[in-house]
Amino acid sequence: MPTRTLHLNAFLMGVGHHEAAWRHPRTEPARLTDVRHYQQLARIAERGRLDSVFLADSLALQGDVRHNALGGLEPLTLLAALAAVTDHVGLIATVSTTYNEPFHVARKFASLDHISGGRAGWNIVTSAGEAEARNFGIERPAHADRYARAAEFLDVVTGLWDSWEDDAVVGDRLGGVYADAGRIHPLDHDGPHFRVRGPLNTSRPPQGHPLLVQAGSSEDGKDFAARYAEAVFTAQQTLADAQAFYTDLKGRLARYGRHPGDLLVLPGISPVIGSTEREARRLEQELQDLIIPAYGLAQLSHLVGIELTEDALDRPLPDVSAETEGAQSRRRLVIDLARRENLTVRQLLGRLAGGRGHRVLAGTPERIADEIQLWFENGAADGFNVMPPVLPGGLEDFVDHVVPELQIRGLFRREYEGRTLRDNYDLPRPASRRARPPAGERPDAADTVGSADAVVAS
Amino acid sequence: MPTRTLHLNAFLMGVGHHEAAWRHPRTEPARLTDVRHYQQLARIAERGRLDSVFLADSLALQGDVRHNALGGLEPLTLLAALAAVTDHVGLIATVSTTYNEPFHVARKFASLDHISGGRAGWNIVTSAGEAEARNFGIERPAHADRYARAAEFLDVVTGLWDSWEDDAVVGDRLGGVYADAGRIHPLDHDGPHFRVRGPLNTSRPPQGHPLLVQAGSSEDGKDFAARYAEAVFTAQQTLADAQAFYTDLKGRLARYGRHPGDLLVLPGISPVIGSTEREARRLEQELQDLIIPAYGLAQLSHLVGIELTEDALDRPLPDVSAETEGAQSRRRLVIDLARRENLTVRQLLGRLAGGRGHRVLAGTPERIADEIQLWFENGAADGFNVMPPVLPGGLEDFVDHVVPELQIRGLFRREYEGRTLRDNYDLPRPASRRARPPAGERPDAADTVGSADAVVAS
Repeated sequence: MPTRTLHLNAFLMGVGHHEAAWRHPRTEPARLTDVRHYQQLARIAERGRLDSVFLADSLALQGDVRHNALGGLEPLTLLAALAAVTDHVGLIATVSTTYNEPFHVARKFASLDHISGGRAGWNIVTSAGEAEARNFGIERPAHADRYARAAEFLDVVTGLWDSWEDDAVVGDRLGGVYADAGRIHPLDHDGPHFRVRGPLNTSRPPQGHPLLVQAGSSEDGKDFAARYAEAVFTAQQTLADAQAFYTDLKGRLARYGRHPGDLLVLPGISPVIGSTEREARRLEQELQDLIIPAYGLAQLSHLVGIELTEDALDRPLPDVSAETEGAQSRRRLVIDLARRENLTVRQLLGRLAGGRGHRVLAGTPERIADEIQLWFENGAADGFNVMPPVLPGGLEDFVDHVVPELQIRGLFRREYEGRTLRDNYDLPRPASRRARPPAGERPDAADTVGSADAVVAS
Repeated sequence: MPTRTLHLNAFLMGVGHHEAAWRHPRTEPARLTDVRHYQQLARIAERGRLDSVFLADSLALQGDVRHNALGGLEPLTLLAALAAVTDHVGLIATVSTTYNEPFHVARKFASLDHISGGRAGWNIVTSAGEAEARNFGIERPAHADRYARAAEFLDVVTGLWDSWEDDAVVGDRLGGVYADAGRIHPLDHDGPHFRVRGPLNTSRPPQGHPLLVQAGSSEDGKDFAARYAEAVFTAQQTLADAQAFYTDLKGRLARYGRHPGDLLVLPGISPVIGSTEREARRLEQELQDLIIPAYGLAQLSHLVGIELTEDALDRPLPDVSAETEGAQSRRRLVIDLARRENLTVRQLLGRLAGGRGHRVLAGTPERIADEIQLWFENGAADGFNVMPPVLPGGLEDFVDHVVPELQIRGLFRREYEGRTLRDNYDLPRPASRRARPPAGERPDAADTVGSADAVVAS
């Protein structure tokens, strides 16, 4: 087995990533809010020795619920329920830095990390959309402001995770000392966006820091990833684009004193799997035949910023030049795709229906393994964010047929080698920035948590 | 079995409610952040057919961590992990209305309610303490402001839970209609504290509304409970005080068009159980002998608002007249207790160590059942909030010895009769305030959720 190992994340989305998945006979849309569905998916991922499962999120009902299975579960509560039925697979939840407070986010991820024995990961998003802003009564912040807030948010959250040193809990029952208050530190953060005293009221997470994941592909997003993220999910349609993104992102790490191996690049791939090419194409066609054009048209109109009607379906995508709110890199990808392949709007909708701009690949397990290997060995990917078109069937197909092929080729683990998400991703456990100084240089009392603060009335 | 049934909630707190529990040989303080500990407790509660388990919370490290096992898990993530290993027991989490946004709270409880099959409850707190305010960078709001915000917060949260009608999801795969957009409504709330557009992005919870629980005993707190709460946790030391509280609270319900049976009053009780009175007293004494006076002194000083030192231990509680921040009703209870029983500060600390002002009752299972029956049958309680001094042992003792005694007396269920927390508490499922109007009076398009709002880039 080569020293560099492929990493695979299962991106779980309702009953599948294809927008018409809920209409396909292989799915049961009533399972959208059924925890047993997601527990089954997590167990399948673990059976396949996948690194992690991942839940996207937004803070508004987005998309036309008339024509898609929307309105599912909240990621952090759901992942805690998945932690209870799995032992190894990582658990990555999306949480916004724009509509949250860092104390809550630090605490919930610390808690999930304890609950899962060190398997929590945080996909950091800054929430571009107008709909989310309207659920929190604020004006949608500008792009740069969102990233400035996100950077300060990360400093606070990681500071809170470090507020308890690893060995703060002493547990001396006879001596009556539960914790060494000299190893629990206030944060005393006072910045433009947040004032947070700390310490956290949960001890340091098993991973030190839950894994930091990011998905923005704008310039600000890539710089943010280079500074903070340990894994990046990205949408890439071609090998050349993926290589360029990979090289760009890895090249930015040195600015922040980091090495190329400190961050994994994981492009999305939606594998439509058949035992023959023909069977794969048939499944793909079945799903395409279930598309409701009005649904995709509305999504596409919003993304490109012009109102597209059914009249536009069999014509090329009109010229779109104005910037729209958020998601610029996804917008650029979609326009480039339409132009490069000279697609009509209908054809473009078909290409987006499977993965919202992520790469869709229909074929046999061997063919899908070939593509994974090609990208992995040619500077385009450290692994993949696997987005099955239908769930659970598409994930079962991947685990039962593609994973064994990758194992045979020596690209993927046959057994888990550790217990934490960081172990799965071969990433180190961060030291605390408040690691204990040598005796004689101990912080003075003003820097420690001593006397009682308040009685908890309950 | 009488038509009026006793209700029992297991209040789970670390390794026990006694402040010295972590030092006692029957506990393992390292389990404070171990999910298996809490899963074991939830299973024990379910084995005893208890109505629910409950987790308190605060948003700061409160109390002196040198001398108590503090720094545990966040309630919502933890309860989701308990949902995964239980089938009937209710799951009640404390969440503050002062340091949260209603959209998040509505969504997380809706999610927990789906995950648990209708077993979620929300203990609503307004967070009186200074330490919590400092973790969120704001000034501590005044008492009345906290309750005004809480009331608006509740209106928004319940409105969001009602934003999807129960039958909004149609799931017509052939026709391509997932949901009837005419049955999903924006909230368009615009009030002094919140502007929230809605709808929620999670469908209506199985219980309609997760159960609403409250614990404040101030005048504002009691009015809030009478308006919104369906169960109230309260600290009461004497039968007379408990009867007065019960009568007062039930009497307030009519002002809000509610009936006495719409709200359950559940005083706290910390049962120290022995097979003989002597064995119970011995366990109580073992715990008292492990008390570290400095811990309780700091807690008590904070509560009453004067600095008490070890010199004060063997004297009566000094005169304390000034008001302090928050927790006024608990402060009054503690001062009354010291005066009524003419206690020294050391004796008072001993009385508070077991339940922070809640009633501690040491005795045989029969004696504890007697007291429960006495309060239940004499207008003081609809049930109890059971606070075992050590965990899991104290909960096992209660379930294995007190519960059977209550069952023999016909006071408590032998089997669960329903599936939801509302079923356990014999409380009705609320209708949606947006229940579907008859055909012909359907809301117009402006009041429904139609076209796509945004593409989710992920």
